[in-house]
Parts: sequence; C-alpha cells; structure tokens
Amino acid sequence: MTELTFIADTLDHVASLVADGYDNRAQLQISSKDGPNDVLTQVDTDVQARIVERIRQQFPSDRIVAEEAGLTELPSDTRARTWLIDPIDGTQNFVRGFFPAFGISIGFAVGGEVAAGGVSFPVQRQKLLASRGKGAYINGTPLKVSSTSQVSTARVDIDFSSPQFRAQAARSTEALLLEAGQIRAYSCAVVGFCQVAAGEQDAYVLFGANPWDIAAGQIIVEEAGGSVTRLSGERILPFDGEVGAVVTNGKIHRDCIRVIHSSSPELRV
Amino acid sequence: MTELTFIADTLDHVASLVADGYDNRAQLQISSKDGPNDVLTQVDTDVQARIVERIRQQFPSDRIVAEEAGLTELPSDTRARTWLIDPIDGTQNFVRGFFPAFGISIGFAVGGEVAAGGVSFPVQRQKLLASRGKGAYINGTPLKVSSTSQVSTARVDIDFSSPQFRAQAARSTEALLLEAGQIRAYSCAVVGFCQVAAGEQDAYVLFGANPWDIAAGQIIVEEAGGSVTRLSGERILPFDGEVGAVVTNGKIHRDCIRVIHSSSPELRV
Repeated sequence: MTELTFIADTLDHVASLVADGYDNRAQLQISSKDGPNDVLTQVDTDVQARIVERIRQQFPSDRIVAEEAGLTELPSDTRARTWLIDPIDGTQNFVRGFFPAFGISIGFAVGGEVAAGGVSFPVQRQKLLASRGKGAYINGTPLKVSSTSQVSTARVDIDFSSPQFRAQAARSTEALLLEAGQIRAYSCAVVGFCQVAAGEQDAYVLFGANPWDIAAGQIIVEEAGGSVTRLSGERILPFDGEVGAVVTNGKIHRDCIRVIHSSSPELRV
Repeated sequence: MTELTFIADTLDHVASLVADGYDNRAQLQISSKDGPNDVLTQVDTDVQARIVERIRQQFPSDRIVAEEAGLTELPSDTRARTWLIDPIDGTQNFVRGFFPAFGISIGFAVGGEVAAGGVSFPVQRQKLLASRGKGAYINGTPLKVSSTSQVSTARVDIDFSSPQFRAQAARSTEALLLEAGQIRAYSCAVVGFCQVAAGEQDAYVLFGANPWDIAAGQIIVEEAGGSVTRLSGERILPFDGEVGAVVTNGKIHRDCIRVIHSSSPELRV
C-alpha cells in the first residue's frame, strides 16, 4: 500500500466521526489547551487516536508527530519516515460559526521533504490528495491554482488565529491588508492552503504554524501549481523550525513577499 | 399581508434563483462596478428585479432603495415607507471561495426606523426573520445572541471588504485585532449580522456600509438580544448618512467600542 493510498483510506475511515461530531456540536464538551482561545474537543482526541493506531499497524517503525497530547515533540532525525497529523485543523470553527471551515490533515515526510499529503473536509465530503510529482486532486478531479497575477485584485486569506503570533501577524500584514484586492480570515490552515490549491483564493499567509498545520497543505498547493515558502521566501522543510508561511498561486508569490517585507523588513534573510 | 410575511414569501420566491446560480457559478458572466474588486453578476440583477417587481405589485406607493443600478439613491423623506434590498450581499463570495458566505437581504423601514427584515442563505436553506418587538427567528426557531462577556475571549468578524474604507477599517480595528479572542473576516454583512444574532459569533465590525447592507441585519440582531450602533456608539437610523457599524451580543458592546476608540479617538462624538 502506498503512503497516499493509506492517507486516502485513513481520511475516509475518520471523516464520519468528525462530521457526526459537528452535527452534534451543541453537546460537545469543550476544553482549552493554552488558554480560552485554544480549544479541544473529545472528537480531536478520538480522531487522532484512530489515525495513530492505523499508522502503528501499517507502518510500525515510522515516527508520528501530531497536534494533540503526547505527540507534539518533533523528531530528532529530520530525514526519517514521519507522519504529521492534525485531527481537526480549525477546531474553533468546528465548535462555532456558520461555516464548516475545518479539516483533517495527514502528511507524510521522508528524507526531510513532504512526499504525500491529504486533507478531508468531512462536512463537504471533499478529499484532497497529492504526492510528489503526481499532481493534486479533489475527489479525483485535478486541482489547479488561479491565474490572478496582481496583488491588487487578489483574494488573500490572512490567518490571525494564533494568539501568541497575533501581534506579528498584524504587523507583518499591515501593507498587505491595504494592498490586496480582497481580505478574508477563515482561521484554518487547511482551508487556507486548499482554497489556494483549488483556485478559489489567490494567497494565504499564516503565522505560528506547526509542521502538522503545513505538511499536507504544502504538497497539495505545490502539486496544484502554487508556491509555498517561509516569509523570507525560502522553501519550507517540515522540521526547519520556522513558523510562518506564504502560500500563493505562484504568480503573485514574489509580490506578496515584497509587500510583506515592506511592513516587516526584518523578515528578509 | 404584513410586511414580514411579504418578506418571507419574497425570500422564498427568489432563493432558488440564487442557489441555482451558485451551483452553476463556473458559467457566470462577472462584470465589475467600481473597479475589479466590486463584482456584479446577472443573478444579482435578476434577483433585484424580481424583488422590486413584487414590492411594486403589493405596495405600489412605497419607496425602494437597493444595491444595484438605478435604485441606489436614498429617499428624501426619511420617514416614508421604504424597502431596502441587497439581492446578493457578498457577491464576491458568491463567485469565489469554498463557503457560501452570501445572502439575500430585505429590510422595511417606516417612521425613520427599521420595522421588519429578513435574510435568506439560499445554499444553506436558512431564512432569518424579525419584526420590531416580536423576536427574531431562523427557520421558525428563536434566535439568541451569545453570552460571551469579554472581548479577550470573543469571536470577532472584522469586515475589510470595502476598498474605499479599507484604510479606515485597518486603522480603527488596530487594537481590536490584537485584543479580540478570535478574528474572522467573511466579508459579508448579512453573514456578520446573522452570526451574531445566532450566537455563532460575538461581534462584527464593518465600514463603508450602505443602508441596504444594514437594515435587515440590524433588526434581526436587535430582536435576538444584541446591540447595533454606529462606531460612535449612537443608534443607527437607516438614512443617517453614516457608514460604519458595531454589532455585538450586547454584553461586549461598550468594550468593543472602547477598544475601537483607543485606536481611533476621532470616532467619538
């Protein structure tokens, strides 16, 4: 079984658990992690446990890093076979809001690079899959980024969700907030990445991201023809220790970074 | 027939036209109004025409103000019976993006006050209705704002959509962007108002709004127990000529305005 097939099967296996949890979210027990703005539900915990169990059965010697308890430590060997999991990316949108702006994210890295990834949007019944050099697909249909070529007409999602990085996000996007054609903030990494991959949005900028927020989204966007870099413009490696990312359709990538640097020159390397 | 019954029937009458247009949005002809970031489709025009036709049949002597061509002029007699229509509020989200963050908005004002209003989210098949003193309902179920009592844990939607007012929006919300618990930007007035009315969000701040962006949403939020004022804190009258609004669950209203004023003291009156 390839890693991508395993990701697809595993996403299918847990999607209904998340969709059912959402349907019954009025009954959810919500706890907090790092303060009241960082929430956790039993569904996050259960979904992570199921994904981890499947990986341990299928690939017993692989490393696993994941958002919830016990697995957040990054691997010391950055080139080892490693799975990166976010059981529900966008938990705050899972518990509140009109729109199901959350998803399940599974990435696989080897040799220090993301090699495969998948995202499931369980409520919308959409599954996005990509592996290196083999394209990106949504429910089997190829994904392609937009053709927007100017920041001034681009639809840009800025992520202000991480409380610790809010001030940096606000300062770094001061100019982008004024210059972009449209501003959105859905506060969910997989939504940000996948909207760019699907051509529904032209850019996404995020701060305070962990490796499991990025891995699957990165390869889906890259395989759909887009660009994903650090704020400096450098390529993202899963365990490079950086926490910001610029995600675009490729055509406006340099311009987005230039506008961000005009607010925050220290981000240049 | 009461104005509210008329609004409910009219929303039902046009909802499928909007939902069908969304299903086939890849085929939409998109034109622009005030530049490339202000889009218009044939669906906006058709829906407005149908709503206007129904009003002219049922209430032939009433005034009509509406977002699209020919009806944007505000009435000279601000106390006259007046209908306020936005055929698709959130057209940019109608043509792009994963989430159907747009709605049809119909308000009715008389004596200088909004007396009834309704919003339809056609894709979600949700209809929100309110009339003065009689409560607000979503598909027949009473709406109630959230109980969140602190800005620091509030989920706040900031509207950066109006290009002409983007700089003012950014400056006025500089402190709010840092202090709020969660930041979202859906860029759609009826989504902003109705998420507050339904308790799915705690505040919504918008700039550059026209009377038809506000009327229906205002009465729905007020009847759900929330507060809607200008940025100064003053009550909103449909034709007062102001263009900003603060929409909250009521409990955090003063604090939201205080935080906004800390960035923009000139907004105080």
